[in-house]
Amino acid sequence: MWKKNIETFLGCDADYAEASVVLFGAPFDSTTSFRPGTRFGSSAIRHESYGLESYSPYQDHDITDFSIFDGGDLELPFGDPSPALEQIQTASASILQDNKIPFLLGGEHLVTLGSVRAAAMHFSDLHILHFDAHADLRDEYLGASLSHACVLRRCYELLGKDKIFQYGIRSGDQHEFKWANGKVFTHRFNFSGLENTLDVLDGKPVYLTVDLDVLDPSVFPGTGTPEPGGVSFEELRCAVTAACEHLQIIGADVNELSPHYDPSGISTATACKIVREMLIALLKNKGANFCAARRKL
Amino acid sequence: MWKKNIETFLGCDADYAEASVVLFGAPFDSTTSFRPGTRFGSSAIRHESYGLESYSPYQDHDITDFSIFDGGDLELPFGDPSPALEQIQTASASILQDNKIPFLLGGEHLVTLGSVRAAAMHFSDLHILHFDAHADLRDEYLGASLSHACVLRRCYELLGKDKIFQYGIRSGDQHEFKWANGKVFTHRFNFSGLENTLDVLDGKPVYLTVDLDVLDPSVFPGTGTPEPGGVSFEELRCAVTAACEHLQIIGADVNELSPHYDPSGISTATACKIVREMLIALLKNKGANFCAARRKL
Amino acid sequence: MWKKNIETFLGCDADYAEASVVLFGAPFDSTTSFRPGTRFGSSAIRHESYGLESYSPYQDHDITDFSIFDGGDLELPFGDPSPALEQIQTASASILQDNKIPFLLGGEHLVTLGSVRAAAMHFSDLHILHFDAHADLRDEYLGASLSHACVLRRCYELLGKDKIFQYGIRSGDQHEFKWANGKVFTHRFNFSGLENTLDVLDGKPVYLTVDLDVLDPSVFPGTGTPEPGGVSFEELRCAVTAACEHLQIIGADVNELSPHYDPSGISTATACKIVREMLIALLKNKGANFCAARRKL
Amino acid sequence: MWKKNIETFLGCDADYAEASVVLFGAPFDSTTSFRPGTRFGSSAIRHESYGLESYSPYQDHDITDFSIFDGGDLELPFGDPSPALEQIQTASASILQDNKIPFLLGGEHLVTLGSVRAAAMHFSDLHILHFDAHADLRDEYLGASLSHACVLRRCYELLGKDKIFQYGIRSGDQHEFKWANGKVFTHRFNFSGLENTLDVLDGKPVYLTVDLDVLDPSVFPGTGTPEPGGVSFEELRCAVTAACEHLQIIGADVNELSPHYDPSGISTATACKIVREMLIALLKNKGANFCAARRKL
Amino acid sequence: MWKKNIETFLGCDADYAEASVVLFGAPFDSTTSFRPGTRFGSSAIRHESYGLESYSPYQDHDITDFSIFDGGDLELPFGDPSPALEQIQTASASILQDNKIPFLLGGEHLVTLGSVRAAAMHFSDLHILHFDAHADLRDEYLGASLSHACVLRRCYELLGKDKIFQYGIRSGDQHEFKWANGKVFTHRFNFSGLENTLDVLDGKPVYLTVDLDVLDPSVFPGTGTPEPGGVSFEELRCAVTAACEHLQIIGADVNELSPHYDPSGISTATACKIVREMLIALLKNKGANFCAARRKL
Amino acid sequence: MWKKNIETFLGCDADYAEASVVLFGAPFDSTTSFRPGTRFGSSAIRHESYGLESYSPYQDHDITDFSIFDGGDLELPFGDPSPALEQIQTASASILQDNKIPFLLGGEHLVTLGSVRAAAMHFSDLHILHFDAHADLRDEYLGASLSHACVLRRCYELLGKDKIFQYGIRSGDQHEFKWANGKVFTHRFNFSGLENTLDVLDGKPVYLTVDLDVLDPSVFPGTGTPEPGGVSFEELRCAVTAACEHLQIIGADVNELSPHYDPSGISTATACKIVREMLIALLKNKGANFCAARRKL
Repeated sequence: MWKKNIETFLGCDADYAEASVVLFGAPFDSTTSFRPGTRFGSSAIRHESYGLESYSPYQDHDITDFSIFDGGDLELPFGDPSPALEQIQTASASILQDNKIPFLLGGEHLVTLGSVRAAAMHFSDLHILHFDAHADLRDEYLGASLSHACVLRRCYELLGKDKIFQYGIRSGDQHEFKWANGKVFTHRFNFSGLENTLDVLDGKPVYLTVDLDVLDPSVFPGTGTPEPGGVSFEELRCAVTAACEHLQIIGADVNELSPHYDPSGISTATACKIVREMLIALLKNKGANFCAARRKL
Repeated sequence: MWKKNIETFLGCDADYAEASVVLFGAPFDSTTSFRPGTRFGSSAIRHESYGLESYSPYQDHDITDFSIFDGGDLELPFGDPSPALEQIQTASASILQDNKIPFLLGGEHLVTLGSVRAAAMHFSDLHILHFDAHADLRDEYLGASLSHACVLRRCYELLGKDKIFQYGIRSGDQHEFKWANGKVFTHRFNFSGLENTLDVLDGKPVYLTVDLDVLDPSVFPGTGTPEPGGVSFEELRCAVTAACEHLQIIGADVNELSPHYDPSGISTATACKIVREMLIALLKNKGANFCAARRKL
Repeated sequence: MWKKNIETFLGCDADYAEASVVLFGAPFDSTTSFRPGTRFGSSAIRHESYGLESYSPYQDHDITDFSIFDGGDLELPFGDPSPALEQIQTASASILQDNKIPFLLGGEHLVTLGSVRAAAMHFSDLHILHFDAHADLRDEYLGASLSHACVLRRCYELLGKDKIFQYGIRSGDQHEFKWANGKVFTHRFNFSGLENTLDVLDGKPVYLTVDLDVLDPSVFPGTGTPEPGGVSFEELRCAVTAACEHLQIIGADVNELSPHYDPSGISTATACKIVREMLIALLKNKGANFCAARRKL
Repeated sequence: MWKKNIETFLGCDADYAEASVVLFGAPFDSTTSFRPGTRFGSSAIRHESYGLESYSPYQDHDITDFSIFDGGDLELPFGDPSPALEQIQTASASILQDNKIPFLLGGEHLVTLGSVRAAAMHFSDLHILHFDAHADLRDEYLGASLSHACVLRRCYELLGKDKIFQYGIRSGDQHEFKWANGKVFTHRFNFSGLENTLDVLDGKPVYLTVDLDVLDPSVFPGTGTPEPGGVSFEELRCAVTAACEHLQIIGADVNELSPHYDPSGISTATACKIVREMLIALLKNKGANFCAARRKL
Repeated sequence: MWKKNIETFLGCDADYAEASVVLFGAPFDSTTSFRPGTRFGSSAIRHESYGLESYSPYQDHDITDFSIFDGGDLELPFGDPSPALEQIQTASASILQDNKIPFLLGGEHLVTLGSVRAAAMHFSDLHILHFDAHADLRDEYLGASLSHACVLRRCYELLGKDKIFQYGIRSGDQHEFKWANGKVFTHRFNFSGLENTLDVLDGKPVYLTVDLDVLDPSVFPGTGTPEPGGVSFEELRCAVTAACEHLQIIGADVNELSPHYDPSGISTATACKIVREMLIALLKNKGANFCAARRKL
Repeated sequence: MWKKNIETFLGCDADYAEASVVLFGAPFDSTTSFRPGTRFGSSAIRHESYGLESYSPYQDHDITDFSIFDGGDLELPFGDPSPALEQIQTASASILQDNKIPFLLGGEHLVTLGSVRAAAMHFSDLHILHFDAHADLRDEYLGASLSHACVLRRCYELLGKDKIFQYGIRSGDQHEFKWANGKVFTHRFNFSGLENTLDVLDGKPVYLTVDLDVLDPSVFPGTGTPEPGGVSFEELRCAVTAACEHLQIIGADVNELSPHYDPSGISTATACKIVREMLIALLKNKGANFCAARRKL
């Protein structure tokens, strides 16, 4: 009668060996400068996913039709981010090595750097598609170069020019926007023109990083630095679905949920639904030869 | 100087005998599977209605121009839903018997079944217009057939095919959507096409059930199972106003407010305003012969 | 090494003498009838502004490019509003006397009366542009004539017919709307037609008063009397930017933030961003001769 | 079947004519200087009393054994306290006139002044027993003489020397403590010596005013100005029971519950239990000739 | 590298076969009459136990020195309590059958009945030691006999006279206290005299049921019906430690944590610590022959 | 009329040159392992101190009778703690250099290390008096040696054997307690025996560090890791007063307030009152030659 109590994200209970996608959490928020709490994001997403149906009426697929492994949360030290980033990189690298897609749940946005470092070593022509309220392109922030506010700048240093495409950006300092010119494609406020970027990225290995604060705070209040004037749930849902369906996504993350700031729980519910839609879109058009296809990327 | 302290919904202080509409609350949530608390919904609506104006600038009418009786909350037992549903049925039946409209404030959505049972005995051709995020069409849920997740399925068993019209549905399991095919009219996500349904239902006795979680969680975070991607306040306001103006509504309910999940109180304010607009729309075009008209239905 | 700890609104650290705009807070809410707490509004805006960038990607200007003085909060008595209003009037009058723009942070909406009294003595042809969910045109409320619900009525008594233009109004009693006819221009629900009003007000001295509850409660839940069905952040941002760019604003206020009702902090973030956009729009097109230009008004 | 929905404090549903004690609420907090919200105190006490048993195992009596009338809340204006105090005075005077005990639920502590004014006109030798964290003996506060921080000073002006006995006082400015010397009996921190005061007051008409912040914030966090280091629930329960049993209490109040600051609800539960114990202790030893006895005071 | 994410109570990760104690949760609260939410209790205890040290400085033992299996939460239906109680009974019976101690985490207090039914079939001379604020001895409550308010009455019907010993009781209706006389040993308010009861129960099979609301609400605000005037953490810690050390505890439960009512989390921390102390006290004096010793009971 | 808005701790508005004590905040919490948020502690203490009287009825002194400078909060980077600790050390060293007492408001407990490093360079025979729930004596925690859980171990490495005296300790792992033996004086659970330690420390330079979680969570719920079973406010107030009166305190800190976890605000009120009592006790017996006396230490 008795088996162990195992908590995974909604329906993601495949064995590691069979899984095409591997979810894991990085509960780290030590460089958060304004209001901390994203360390609770990944476990809240997992815990509250039981309030969500596994079936998507948008895509007419059920997440239980696919093989996804949820590896739980990494045990990361707090304070200095270097050892935490190394652990994340190691985890993502091992997943990529096994021809699976790492799907990271933050944590603050800096955790992306660990996964991108792993992906950049695995894919020579790596591109990043980035949905966010903030440009995150500073060279340093409050004296630190490993900061959530610098994460895309650090990624730029790894990947070089014309590899990063940002959408939804509505906050940053004047220098970030100027610096980006000619280096990073930065589209402000919304997703208009995303279809062109999807064409540009077609067939290339793409890492998709979603800072959930790209959403309007009305539907996603549970985040450290709410920025009024964001995109709607429907806009983000369409954007992530389109990206996951049409691109060769080789890794992804969803971050910056800080559940304690939202006692109603709608932010966590929103995060859960975005993750569900991304997972289904990533997997629905891929047949039995999925892992093989991955391998060729 | 001293009279008793009486709390009613905003301006609904008519005597029972004169009233065309009878409000009453069913503070029951024992079958709620995810997060309970809708038992506090009806009293919160009544209590917080004092922050709302009785005049509607949308309809240019004042709720105090009409005769509405607020009977307060039923005293329902918790746990097994059968005796609670019987009490609700008895209450609705007595109101219908007096040629008045029962207007039920939940509570969880299962309370609708009590009122629909009464209405189905009173009106042979009863139809249901249902606004909700969830289809609520399961045969059973966690082993129980009397569950909020099954309420429209139980109603279907009473009324039969082609009698139930659902709008706004954005969550359910795969089987519910398949089962509904050819039995229940289920429109996903929004209210587009509602005018056609209003034409179809014209002149028929209609029970209107509004699960407030049809609203987007941004404006209605105070509910047990928030589902991002819902309709706006303005869309729901227009839909309920149209339905109450154009149809022969013989009973109605508004449910699933769980006020404790929303410390800002905007969910309760939203519920109050929807109830005000529904009551005014139900009553504004009806003259002295209203009760007589009801009788003929 | 040690200097005093000084908290100002984001980047508003000019000396008084150089400043074109003077921010100050009026933490008063004693006449609030439903849910108090706006007394905490001005200090929350100041405190939380550190989570906001000083650069506006909407207007491509940085607030630190301008000279703004933040005078902190007045120390007002609670209870009887008369002495508090006198203090606010004195403060605004001294700023106007120095050819600067008073920018008042409430507090409840009644605080506007103090500033308008000062402005009406300074500008003979004063007009008011008013964004709000509520008409605030009652003659008295619960027996009091100095009430937040009467503030525009009191302003009307100072300024007379055809001087007050209201947008976004979606709540009031029937008498207010009737009374307004032919005296106050009251546009319901949204900002459509605002460009015509901007034409009418062109070149005239205008006091701009923004009750933040004109916003939909989804993005601004932190207020005493939330009114579902309001304008979006984007609509308000465009409206205040247009007004501040095109009109001769001689004074302004932003009020009715009650931060404690919104534990997520998105209401305060929204207030901060609206204030930032207003300040930049007020100042961006004005050159060195700004104070001189003011003087001619 | 249908009767009106009436909410009273637990079991206090006697007719006015039969009642020995008359409960009523004064939801006023306009002079509160730090954190408002006591306006919600009386209705929270009434609403949440349904979670409390009517039987006291401490006194082995049930509140339903006595005749108590709950008159609900007065409708008071906000802002200037003078008209609110007049309404409270009128209400208390009418109850005293009918040889009943007025039992006032605040609201802020200033409301006591209304009741004490009525009682002082009714009883020439009126004394006050006062349990509080704060001395409330300032001559004025922030420029106002009608302030919660001055309420016992105003009472002193009515009653004169050696009539006011304070217990539990642990906060005040230096002047208050000095001024009190030889005018008001002020016992700091706890209730030690209360039995002597009960002897002194024996047989005299006594008004008992309980500011619930005399309690330690651990058990009563829901108040505007929490003062660590207060008395325990058990200490206050014993003190109020002793006072109500042994003295000729001719009026009483319980105030300063601000329920919104305590989402757990334990403050309201504590207030309810103190009120229950006071009511039972006031009434348990009085026979059929109670009203007559009152008359002789 | 990848192993499944498993969440257990602090250090309780033994295999079932080796374990002396089996923890499991019963997330059920459908009969809760006042404020629901104890369904979240067991998972909160498990989740938040990571903030607690496994070492007890009180008992100088570490929980990891013992073999305890955490079976997670049962999946119980909501609404009618009968099937839920059957599942709990089956689970406890299987544990008892394997000569282990079932340690149940509620949920509302009614869940105790499931475990007691199993224990009563296993031990002919079963006694109950019960720590609670409420007597829970009603025959029925709001028309239901399977209610949290009746759970000890139902146990009495199974076990008979002089088998139930209650401590800490400070709330109930008059009839419960009268009925208990001569049937159930009911000690009010505190634990004085507990050592005598421990002597009486010495060597007998005892089921220990702890309703955490026996604690004062100051340290345990997160419960549905807070009752001021309870025991301190230190008093409860000593009482449970004494009982677990000295008695032949054959089953136990800890219930009525409703974590959502306490945003500070101190209630969950308190529950975790009580559970840790109980588990260590149950196991610390038992050697390798523990299971054998159990068998003889 | 206009002067800058300056927020200091209650009455601490002396010039730096005249001040005997210098308050400053270290809003750092990056190594917090369980629940972050102490970064908001120092500003909350400063902000909420306006609800507190400057007069202490315990010590019959007013804080405004003394000269205390509040330097505000340091601007510290988040993430790696090394640069933050250096800034704190520099600040404390400069204050000690000026013969004043540094009084640090945390932040997490690790910030103490910065001040102790400065003090250890200034006073060759430095001792530490430490009030806390946790021993904080680990060699490393989650792989980091600069962690809140290791802070007293790091201090031990600076000061050596028999220099650190801990009171109130009720949580730690088994190794910490064993390691402490013969190196650090660790008294569990309470303050009994403190008078002996005060004798031992008499005349020696003592740094006093107060982790507020030594308090019971009932009166101090707003902290990251609540530990039930702590000391009362009264016990801590007496202990800090005795230490500050009788010892040669050369530096002090108060830390681990995490105000967001306590919406009632009682934790911040408690912190404010402890700081007020410490400041008055530090200064009340020292005359004009205070700075000179300091110099001799």
